[in-house]
Amino acid sequence: MAMKLVRGDKQLAGDLIRALEHVRSNLRCCSLCGSVTSVDEDPCRLCTGPGRDASQLCVVEEPTDVASIERSGGFHGRYHALMGRVSPMKGEGPGELRIQALMDRVKKERPTEVILALSTTVEGDSTASYIAELLKGQGVKVTRLAFGLPADSGVTYSDPVTLEKALKGRQEA
Amino acid sequence: MAMKLVRGDKQLAGDLIRALEHVRSNLRCCSLCGSVTSVDEDPCRLCTGPGRDASQLCVVEEPTDVASIERSGGFHGRYHALMGRVSPMKGEGPGELRIQALMDRVKKERPTEVILALSTTVEGDSTASYIAELLKGQGVKVTRLAFGLPADSGVTYSDPVTLEKALKGRQEA
Repeated sequence: MAMKLVRGDKQLAGDLIRALEHVRSNLRCCSLCGSVTSVDEDPCRLCTGPGRDASQLCVVEEPTDVASIERSGGFHGRYHALMGRVSPMKGEGPGELRIQALMDRVKKERPTEVILALSTTVEGDSTASYIAELLKGQGVKVTRLAFGLPADSGVTYSDPVTLEKALKGRQEA
Repeated sequence: MAMKLVRGDKQLAGDLIRALEHVRSNLRCCSLCGSVTSVDEDPCRLCTGPGRDASQLCVVEEPTDVASIERSGGFHGRYHALMGRVSPMKGEGPGELRIQALMDRVKKERPTEVILALSTTVEGDSTASYIAELLKGQGVKVTRLAFGLPADSGVTYSDPVTLEKALKGRQEA
């Protein structure tokens, strides 16, 4: 990309500069949920919108996860982005994440369910366990997204771990 | 591959001929479950082995699915390969599949659970609904593999349908 800019695509460089200026002056992360919002709308619409169900709080790793879940149309509650996940290998402990802010929100907003929409990786699993442990005794139901076969896939080419979890989590047909 | 054979890899052609001869003279599909077995072992070891739990019958589309589920280590029951799936678009109706053989087995072997390990496609869904309907009133629990996020994946790059199903099927953390 750098070479493309240097070798003469002046139009592209200008577009990029304008896009970056727009981001710098107009966008920020919502101080409540952490997802992307405009500077003059904080907390964001997902936090304050009348159509959002305050009883469900969906915990994600990154603001980009919020956009993906919104596209699915399957969730109408509120979000909380951690801005990462617990990763001892990369030196990222719980202190680096917005976990204390999550605890404060749970105490204040009193959702009935916290949905952990985290990666299905070792790091996602660790983060989920850590948060589930912290939320014990807070009178809130803690759930996690289902593991299993993704849409439009089959058994033959699924990896063994996915198949094992899909078998374990099988549901009445 | 054809060009590779023609252009001179005589060794490869010989290996392929021997492999095909081996398949022709030594392998067949088990007359009971449909998975691959040797000609002198029919029904196969998965059908007759002492370690296999006869109370669970796992319905798959193809014999290759059996190998994948065995690799996962998450299932110890018996199998039944349909040899395809209901696909009106391709002119494959239920009559083309081993569905009558499945009904006969359920009546004879009396499993307590039939697990539908089918594709998460429109065709897989149709096949699952069709079989679930046929098994109603047979006194057998019918389940399907969990839909959701596969192993080692995250929210941002998951497709909307998968996220919607993962949200719907969420489990207590």
